[in-house]
Amino acid sequence: MSVTDINYDRTMGRWEPKSRERLEQAALALYGERGFEQTTVTEIAKRAGLTERTFFRHFADKREVLFGGSGMLQELFTTAVAAAPAGTTPIDAIGRALDVVAELFEQRHESARQRQAVIAANAELQERELIKLARLGAALADALRRRDVPEPAASLAAEAGIAVFKIAFERWIADPGQPDLGQLMRQSLDELKAVTAGE
Amino acid sequence: MSVTDINYDRTMGRWEPKSRERLEQAALALYGERGFEQTTVTEIAKRAGLTERTFFRHFADKREVLFGGSGMLQELFTTAVAAAPAGTTPIDAIGRALDVVAELFEQRHESARQRQAVIAANAELQERELIKLARLGAALADALRRRDVPEPAASLAAEAGIAVFKIAFERWIADPGQPDLGQLMRQSLDELKAVTAGE
Repeated sequence: MSVTDINYDRTMGRWEPKSRERLEQAALALYGERGFEQTTVTEIAKRAGLTERTFFRHFADKREVLFGGSGMLQELFTTAVAAAPAGTTPIDAIGRALDVVAELFEQRHESARQRQAVIAANAELQERELIKLARLGAALADALRRRDVPEPAASLAAEAGIAVFKIAFERWIADPGQPDLGQLMRQSLDELKAVTAGE
Repeated sequence: MSVTDINYDRTMGRWEPKSRERLEQAALALYGERGFEQTTVTEIAKRAGLTERTFFRHFADKREVLFGGSGMLQELFTTAVAAAPAGTTPIDAIGRALDVVAELFEQRHESARQRQAVIAANAELQERELIKLARLGAALADALRRRDVPEPAASLAAEAGIAVFKIAFERWIADPGQPDLGQLMRQSLDELKAVTAGE
């Protein structure tokens, strides 16, 4: 299941199969070729063989092509934390959420790589990405508190989880030959455990 | 030693003793009373009993009153990591840096509290603060790599350090009766170790 499929089910009718996905692919290709700033919605729609009207049915603006999945990512993370069996330690609840999230991205290596390159080339998008991760951290801490994890343990475990997610994700993006994001997440979490244990 | 003293030594002549500090205090008071957006440089200078010209000798704009110390904070962090004895583990090097940084802030509880309240009330300033912390994390990871800490351990230890800093700082700000930031930093670091160890 990919981000696109989910959005497809929720927002699209049968008369435009995969138009969200086509728009996303066209946008990512154009952002990569010309830069984010230089690309217009008109061009994205044209490249996708669709109308601007269709674009705006799926995305509020061209930035949302890059960040429209944030809410769902957050929901996946927090739902997975909430679903962990009673008695699961905070860090294991985070580990389970990382597994679930990794699975979501597995099928999207190429578009995730393209997206990351666009963001790396634009200071304003980098800031937006930081804000996304900070919100994700706050939502994770909240999910842990709802499991009766006290502060500051909830916030620390959440921030640790975001650090692992961010670093594993960057390693995955950097290496097109490495398809297993879940494995990188688990490695990075183990590495964090070793680092904080003073190894 | 405070942020203000250091900036004073570097940028000011003897003819305006403490003018940077006076401008900072005036600005923080006004940002708190009227909001950051609604405060002008003219008002800050007037409140401090100084000229706008003097303001601009110390700060590029009114936002820099809040973020002008970021560079020095980063330098303190990275210098402390670099100065840790050979053989110090990455997490202990981070712990030393947190001690040094805590000392810097000890004398500035009230202005730190005021600053945080201003930032909490303004979305754009919150974003700026996130970017500051992200840069700090990248600089810390860089300082660890220069100690031959490999990746991803360097980035994970750095991100863990930033999480501890952020959370201890927030606890310190929230409790005016708690003057010992260093103690909160050490507690939070111990708590992170316990959390990642699965406690």
